[in-house]
Amino acid sequence: MSKVNERLANLAQIGRVEQGMDRALATPAEREARLLFASWARERRYSLTQDRVGNLFARRNGARDGARPLLVGSHLDTVKNGGAYDGAYGVVAALCALEALDEHKIETEHPIEAVAWVGEEGGRFPLACVGSAFFTGACDAARALALTDSDGVTLEQALASADGGLLEGIPARDESRVAAYLEIHIEQGPILEREGVSLGIVTAINGQRRYRVIVNGTPGHAGTVPMARRGDALCAAAEMILATERAALSIGECVVTFGTLVVEPNAPNVIPGRVTFSVDIRSPEDARVEAVENALREAAGDVNGRRRVAAAIERLQGHAPVPMDPKLRNATARAIGALGERAIDVPSGAGHDAMLLARIAPAAMIFVPSIGGRSHVPEEETSPRDLELGLTALTAAIVEVDKFVI
Amino acid sequence: MSKVNERLANLAQIGRVEQGMDRALATPAEREARLLFASWARERRYSLTQDRVGNLFARRNGARDGARPLLVGSHLDTVKNGGAYDGAYGVVAALCALEALDEHKIETEHPIEAVAWVGEEGGRFPLACVGSAFFTGACDAARALALTDSDGVTLEQALASADGGLLEGIPARDESRVAAYLEIHIEQGPILEREGVSLGIVTAINGQRRYRVIVNGTPGHAGTVPMARRGDALCAAAEMILATERAALSIGECVVTFGTLVVEPNAPNVIPGRVTFSVDIRSPEDARVEAVENALREAAGDVNGRRRVAAAIERLQGHAPVPMDPKLRNATARAIGALGERAIDVPSGAGHDAMLLARIAPAAMIFVPSIGGRSHVPEEETSPRDLELGLTALTAAIVEVDKFVI
Repeated sequence: MSKVNERLANLAQIGRVEQGMDRALATPAEREARLLFASWARERRYSLTQDRVGNLFARRNGARDGARPLLVGSHLDTVKNGGAYDGAYGVVAALCALEALDEHKIETEHPIEAVAWVGEEGGRFPLACVGSAFFTGACDAARALALTDSDGVTLEQALASADGGLLEGIPARDESRVAAYLEIHIEQGPILEREGVSLGIVTAINGQRRYRVIVNGTPGHAGTVPMARRGDALCAAAEMILATERAALSIGECVVTFGTLVVEPNAPNVIPGRVTFSVDIRSPEDARVEAVENALREAAGDVNGRRRVAAAIERLQGHAPVPMDPKLRNATARAIGALGERAIDVPSGAGHDAMLLARIAPAAMIFVPSIGGRSHVPEEETSPRDLELGLTALTAAIVEVDKFVI
Repeated sequence: MSKVNERLANLAQIGRVEQGMDRALATPAEREARLLFASWARERRYSLTQDRVGNLFARRNGARDGARPLLVGSHLDTVKNGGAYDGAYGVVAALCALEALDEHKIETEHPIEAVAWVGEEGGRFPLACVGSAFFTGACDAARALALTDSDGVTLEQALASADGGLLEGIPARDESRVAAYLEIHIEQGPILEREGVSLGIVTAINGQRRYRVIVNGTPGHAGTVPMARRGDALCAAAEMILATERAALSIGECVVTFGTLVVEPNAPNVIPGRVTFSVDIRSPEDARVEAVENALREAAGDVNGRRRVAAAIERLQGHAPVPMDPKLRNATARAIGALGERAIDVPSGAGHDAMLLARIAPAAMIFVPSIGGRSHVPEEETSPRDLELGLTALTAAIVEVDKFVI
């Protein structure tokens, strides 16, 4: 077994639960994963630093004095009942890439740092990418540390605990400059597998808008209220859902998901009086997200007029599409081409730490295929061969990017 | 305040909770309501009997020896957070009608009995109309007494307890013959109010079929799975719901309700993998119920073919439409006409004890309007004037029916 696969297998032993993996931020399992990363880095004498929220950096020095580091990384936390590859692969591959540079005796201009970002999944504390958001200043320290889990424990308290907290004996990080950022990740979707290609170069991380829709109708007796006099909140919601789905299909290059729907009072003999559902729209182009949102709003206006209901749409968190840096994408494509391998352009449907790093530095991502497109499930898998090829591509991209970034 | 309104107000003090009424079968509140009914009957020296499940009969004797009794009644139990009129009005009106016969010194051929059926709502023990089902033999004693509530208490145990059990000192009923059955009830729907008429003569109690539909799709990441490759269980369910609703509207004289719908895993960023929903179809004509069911099955076949899902339909309990007896309906219409009042024919969207009594005797029902069509809610209401008019109509109908039933 190659080192990248062996290390992934080691990590997969940490936080294993009955159904897949569970390594939520600042839990014992997640801390143990950080410890393992630190021990691998120490074996090779890479200098470690750690910031206030627990992000870990393993540094291989560069030739040029004062050059900003090229960061390469991903995250070690997982969703509940998640898989062994999401995030973990990118961290392991980053460290293996540093070692590959050693083995090939390649001297880089920039220091290269393998980074393990904390809390990308946002599972325990309600902010996705909390580690990279803190590092890039998208979320300040006070706000990050005050995040509270469902038991009322703050991130600050969790990071101070022996169980899941910061690692001991690792110097505090004082470097905040970044020359560029590279991340390799499993695709979490079916495109690479369908196209029969093992490498993807991410064009953009899709923009995302989320909404809460509340449809207020009139509850009533399922037997006695004639159809024509009903204000059936569920039928109205069904109409909005299908109209929005149709719009997304016709707009193209976007997805819309109604992941949650709750009926009140939810009794077989009572006409639904209220329905609350979620809407999640994503696309690499903001205009397409906007167009789907407009269809949702039109559908609300339509049912409000016809169906004796009041549908209200509340917009929640979201972000605009984040394009990856064209120069870094080109450098990555050149590096992969020079290896004699094929890569295609793909959008990223999921969010990633690279989205945050793009705020402060040129950023790019490489994807490897997910078998069956599956992710965030115990069955999440990527073939060992693709994992090895991804590492080779990442190492080559680091060398290529190092050449022109100053 | 007239006696019928005064007695309803007294009953409404029993089982009052923060939101409306709660008098579930064989609870202290429900037993107290039966005690109050018994005390009213004793004041007028009507002879009381009680059967094994707690149905209470107050008898005013008739002139003819050996004539079977004409039963007039409804139920004293309520749904949770229900109103003060559903059932209670029919019991109070039956007793007040006996007293009206006394006051007008009317001698009837048949004994007339005011009946308080137990457990019509099926709220605590999982069988609606358990009292009248037991009385009419639709449900035998062993099965009725073995019914179990959510705490594992059987109906037999509940009826043996001092808290909510049978009343003491009331003779066991040995009469099971019935000449005819009359019931007055609030409409629980909007038709009478809309038509501006205070009395309805029920044509039939609508047939009802209930189903559980399970749509199995494929859960997946809301960002990474393209629309064209999804097996979205919620969008498929929405399509089935709207297709079935459209069919019901076009078939007419029927209603369809999707009262419960549950999404799994119900997370904003996961494509719904499974949706379970209820379907309740009702109509006075079985052929219309059948036609709506066919539309539901067609919609399932349609989404199964197109949407990468598997929708399965399970048929649950239900019953065929129960027409009311034409001779009793005519007698009731004649009696109301002779009072100079107007009545219209209406179907009953809800089930009633009359549905069970129709198995063993001619049965008919009178409806009075529900304000706003509301029922099974704390706001359930009927105007005092309509309640009084209903009592007058019921009394006249008893006299008319008594003339020709043998």
